[in-house]
Amino acid sequence: MIDLDSILKQIEPSKDEKIKVNDFSMQLIKIINQMAHEKGINAEAVLLGSVAKGTWLAGKGDIDIFIKFPINTSREELKTQGLELGKKCIQIVDGNAEERYASHPYVTGILKGYQVDFVPCYDINSFHELKSAVDRTILHTEYIIKNLEPIQTKEVLLLKRFMEMVGTYGSEFKVGGFAGYLLELLVLQYKSFQEVLIAAANDWKPGYKIDLEEYGTTDLFEDPLVVVDPVDKNRNVAASLTIQKMSEFTLAARNFLENPRESYFYPPILQVNKTDLRNDFINRGTKTIIIAFSAPKIPSDALHPQIKKTKKSLVKIMENGDFNVLGSDSWTDEEKTVVILLEMATWSVSLLKKHAGPKVWDSENGKKFYEKHPEAWIEGDQWMTLVERSYNNAESLIQGILTPRGIQRVRVGKHLKKEILKNYQLIDVMDLLVAEDVEEQVLEFLHHYLHKNEFLNRPI
Amino acid sequence: MIDLDSILKQIEPSKDEKIKVNDFSMQLIKIINQMAHEKGINAEAVLLGSVAKGTWLAGKGDIDIFIKFPINTSREELKTQGLELGKKCIQIVDGNAEERYASHPYVTGILKGYQVDFVPCYDINSFHELKSAVDRTILHTEYIIKNLEPIQTKEVLLLKRFMEMVGTYGSEFKVGGFAGYLLELLVLQYKSFQEVLIAAANDWKPGYKIDLEEYGTTDLFEDPLVVVDPVDKNRNVAASLTIQKMSEFTLAARNFLENPRESYFYPPILQVNKTDLRNDFINRGTKTIIIAFSAPKIPSDALHPQIKKTKKSLVKIMENGDFNVLGSDSWTDEEKTVVILLEMATWSVSLLKKHAGPKVWDSENGKKFYEKHPEAWIEGDQWMTLVERSYNNAESLIQGILTPRGIQRVRVGKHLKKEILKNYQLIDVMDLLVAEDVEEQVLEFLHHYLHKNEFLNRPI
Repeated sequence: MIDLDSILKQIEPSKDEKIKVNDFSMQLIKIINQMAHEKGINAEAVLLGSVAKGTWLAGKGDIDIFIKFPINTSREELKTQGLELGKKCIQIVDGNAEERYASHPYVTGILKGYQVDFVPCYDINSFHELKSAVDRTILHTEYIIKNLEPIQTKEVLLLKRFMEMVGTYGSEFKVGGFAGYLLELLVLQYKSFQEVLIAAANDWKPGYKIDLEEYGTTDLFEDPLVVVDPVDKNRNVAASLTIQKMSEFTLAARNFLENPRESYFYPPILQVNKTDLRNDFINRGTKTIIIAFSAPKIPSDALHPQIKKTKKSLVKIMENGDFNVLGSDSWTDEEKTVVILLEMATWSVSLLKKHAGPKVWDSENGKKFYEKHPEAWIEGDQWMTLVERSYNNAESLIQGILTPRGIQRVRVGKHLKKEILKNYQLIDVMDLLVAEDVEEQVLEFLHHYLHKNEFLNRPI
Repeated sequence: MIDLDSILKQIEPSKDEKIKVNDFSMQLIKIINQMAHEKGINAEAVLLGSVAKGTWLAGKGDIDIFIKFPINTSREELKTQGLELGKKCIQIVDGNAEERYASHPYVTGILKGYQVDFVPCYDINSFHELKSAVDRTILHTEYIIKNLEPIQTKEVLLLKRFMEMVGTYGSEFKVGGFAGYLLELLVLQYKSFQEVLIAAANDWKPGYKIDLEEYGTTDLFEDPLVVVDPVDKNRNVAASLTIQKMSEFTLAARNFLENPRESYFYPPILQVNKTDLRNDFINRGTKTIIIAFSAPKIPSDALHPQIKKTKKSLVKIMENGDFNVLGSDSWTDEEKTVVILLEMATWSVSLLKKHAGPKVWDSENGKKFYEKHPEAWIEGDQWMTLVERSYNNAESLIQGILTPRGIQRVRVGKHLKKEILKNYQLIDVMDLLVAEDVEEQVLEFLHHYLHKNEFLNRPI
């Protein structure tokens, strides 16, 4: 086994960092509580999340301040007063407040280099009192603080770092991977980083079930991985984990256990250059089309599903047009650009295609069909004819689809639709890879598209 | 209705023709019977078939002489003595004898311009005594002579001519259409040419049943059309009729009844020229590949099924290679050349293609797969990789298949296989249509491929 201690030294926050982030968190809580007191608002700020649990990776101490209101507070009052307190607090410490909506509204700001979220919630003591999705965070934090041994914190950090570096960490839509709380529960279940990997490598398969508190409710869920929430027996903590990311983690765990290398805890060293990428694409003998357009100004968790849905719909339309798609992917910097990649196995087809009509014995419909298609003929006892395709090459089909009229066929979110109709670029990847001004991130995206395993397997 | 009498005048044999063919038939029978008598062979020649029934079309009086042997004759003796008598008879009248095997051996020759077949058979009185397939012909001829009114002979001639001209006449493999005996039974059933057409146009559909002698055995058969043989209740006279030709006749009948035109009784006037054909193919935006090779010296009824089987197998191989086939057809002059046509909807595809491996959870096989394909990746929970296609364009796939090794993948008869491996030509139809020495018949084949309905519908 490799020296995990030396890795821990780099990923565990220093005493200094711990003191700083805790002091600053306390300062923010004090500000909120004092303001609430002054304004006569019945609310209390508490520190939750990874900083409260002591499970953040060095330099990534995101501060989650939850502002608890009594359960009988109205939703409107909770939202107005909670957001108001958060915004004011951000102003006091000289940051810029940004209001956001996940399933629940909150304010966020970058303060002293920390990402700080202020989240209004209800002050609940058990899941029976749950009034909004974020209330559970109180119970989660309490549960981990109470159950996770200090020594196990290190195991969580190793697992979190490993997951980050192999690309399976994060339950947001962009990733569809493992949430931080889920990692902590896995360490509680298996005791150590290594035991989690051993279980994933050897035991996990779709439908695998973990029930720490032995509620016996695992059969309620049909997700790839079931981890019953210790604070809410009716919830699967792994509900948002995709089979893709579960599989990838299993593979990474197997690869690591077989050849444990420190490189699994660091980003892969990419050597991306246009010439290699061009040669890779040339060797595949495919035609790869890049569709690029401006990113709409919507939250990340709304943007990524819209892009994925659009990509999936485009693939389906291509295949229905007899253009076989070898692979597809998408990328966005979430600010300026969205890129959808379609790698075609077939990109040019005949102008005419066969179209089946009624049976010969259905004389009434057969007659209509024959009148409409004078060159129709019989195959077996079925009327057949040739009809002209609207598009006989992949690019013209895409151009036809991405018009105000054509786009009605695409399952695409309204924000993306607007941006696409405003302007989009259609580029052959071969042309892109000789252009001067290609962003490094786009090249990395192409590299990752061609080498999908580079995160999961570290040969050096 | 059009003037059927004027058509009849052209297709009905003249009195002179009738006398000549009957006299010649009697002369041949006399020769055979005299020889048999001299050689002490217990056999008797009789005239059967359309000449005996009086249902042949003017100028097409093929003479069928059956040489009947007593039922207790051995098969060997029947064959040796029967063929011997036939051959000698042909020599006596100065023709060239050719021995043939259908389901049964016979000798054939062109004598005084008539195609004459000498067929050894058993002298049976009912189907219970059937010893070979051809014995039934005796009973068929007797049944028609006994039941077909002289006036109905004209109806048979009209139906036969109509069927010939729309391309549905002939039960041999090449056509898969209606046998002469079947036409006669249809006239017995429906009384007239026109009533046969009305029934086909309005009543027929797959599974339609005719049982002239009311045997009640129609449920024994599952063919598209069931016509119980009046002389053998266990046989469907329409067994070899394909659903294709049944459908085509139905369509031709509908077209004729809607717009009765004399042209249905004559060959369509084809105006075939290379420029039009080229333009037709260009407008389809397809790629049409012609495979041409020498015709093997085998009987027509063996050749056509082999060609069709080969064509079907080639289409399947193309489609399995992701090359979509829009249409296919074949042609042979039965002597020199066989042509197989493949019109491609997709003729160029990517060099690499996706190949699915085991599930991720099957770690043993997954590991093997990954070792074999280091660039493999995971989709959902399935291993995937790219593999190189052997052929990424349609022509190279065909060239690869038509080699001693590759041809093992093709379902092809041994005679065709031999000819193909000896030599074949692969020609793009565009190149063929600028060549100097294209046979007229090949051009007509291409024309018919492009205009499949020209026989069934006569707009002028």
